[in-house]
Amino acid sequence: MARSISINIIGGGNLAYHLIKEFLKHPEIHLNQLYARNLNQLKDFEGTAVLINDLHLLTPADLSIIAVSDDAIGEVSGQLKHYHSLIVHTSGTQPMEVLQCPRKGVFYPFQSFSKNKSTIDFKEVPLLIEAQNEKDLKKLVFLAKLLSSKVYEMTSRQRSALHLAGVFAANFSNHMYVLADEILKENQIPFELIIPLIQEVAHKINLLSPTEAQTGPAVREDHKTINKHLEMLEGDKKRIYNLLTESIIKTKNK
Amino acid sequence: MARSISINIIGGGNLAYHLIKEFLKHPEIHLNQLYARNLNQLKDFEGTAVLINDLHLLTPADLSIIAVSDDAIGEVSGQLKHYHSLIVHTSGTQPMEVLQCPRKGVFYPFQSFSKNKSTIDFKEVPLLIEAQNEKDLKKLVFLAKLLSSKVYEMTSRQRSALHLAGVFAANFSNHMYVLADEILKENQIPFELIIPLIQEVAHKINLLSPTEAQTGPAVREDHKTINKHLEMLEGDKKRIYNLLTESIIKTKNK
Repeated sequence: MARSISINIIGGGNLAYHLIKEFLKHPEIHLNQLYARNLNQLKDFEGTAVLINDLHLLTPADLSIIAVSDDAIGEVSGQLKHYHSLIVHTSGTQPMEVLQCPRKGVFYPFQSFSKNKSTIDFKEVPLLIEAQNEKDLKKLVFLAKLLSSKVYEMTSRQRSALHLAGVFAANFSNHMYVLADEILKENQIPFELIIPLIQEVAHKINLLSPTEAQTGPAVREDHKTINKHLEMLEGDKKRIYNLLTESIIKTKNK
Repeated sequence: MARSISINIIGGGNLAYHLIKEFLKHPEIHLNQLYARNLNQLKDFEGTAVLINDLHLLTPADLSIIAVSDDAIGEVSGQLKHYHSLIVHTSGTQPMEVLQCPRKGVFYPFQSFSKNKSTIDFKEVPLLIEAQNEKDLKKLVFLAKLLSSKVYEMTSRQRSALHLAGVFAANFSNHMYVLADEILKENQIPFELIIPLIQEVAHKINLLSPTEAQTGPAVREDHKTINKHLEMLEGDKKRIYNLLTESIIKTKNK
């Protein structure tokens, strides 16, 4: 098995930034070239690798990682049709086949990367990999295990189901925090007051299944409290309260 | 100010259990009597206080805490109409006035207490207190500060808004984990794979406002991914996905 790996990274966004920062920590990883359309996006990494803004200048490496928006993957890989080493994308929603190059794979870190938050503990980030052949898969396993203790092989179909589950568990739950914040602001209550509750609920699922951990008026079918809450709400928040309360009761009675 | 406080606890449920366990840790707190309709509920606490199952036997203490379900508060306090020391309830939704006894207050720990999870770090639990007069308020502040670093005086109106916000931030976000789990199960993906994402999203709000922390296809208005997700869903999950996606987009454009 390989003891080192050379890598090109294509993309100047948030995920590319976090990957480059992480890769620089590992002596087994040699950063070959970094590509961004606008070289300014790579200015933090001057001196760490060859910086390019023209894909025709891409030189061979063990692995090239396309970390661009979903919509741009086809176009970028279209420019690499004659590039014969392994290329992977990093998308949860796109199938491996969207890549227009001869040796394809996927390297999907399943985590929410925010621009303003600069540290990610990759050891705890599940890395989902896929490749067309065993040799390339081994290469991806080698890289993934350098970074994380949670490495899974997964088909494109499963990966897109996981991505969808992530929208519920991460994006929608964060939106619940946004709606809570709006209610608090209307009542001159600081948001910090609700943080311990949020952390406890997220922490609990290490110990209980989310179904066992469900609390509140809906799961108790406490219609007195539910009706009191509905009187306090209007518009979207009222519609959301109604729909989610019904859904919690249905889940319980399944 | 008092250097010690004697307490009766009325209730044999989950919150009463956690309060008794916590109170036993503090030498400043003297547990006087514990009441439950069924004494079996108190068997863990034999020898720590006088156990009673008849409210007429309740003897005076600096403070009596009614920790029963919202519906039962009126009935229990109705049996204590002639009891002249301070009595508080522990409900987020009920106003102080629901108590039918002469000296009233509220002592509301804002946290989600699950039966199967046995440790709660009270230091991090916001304690919301209310009383009719200054002297009783001071007594509650003394007790609350023994337990927690987060003590707030709050009116019944604010407390019920906080409770409603908690339904969104805790109960509804937990239901999002439940729906995610269902999607994962249908695709033979273990739930543990999504735990780091959930924890990261809950952790992020220590550093960013929830609005700043919002990620995902809705806030990016990535309709291609949104439509792909909608094709994968049906029934309640599809309705919830639609409504929350609309709400995220509206919030962003406010």
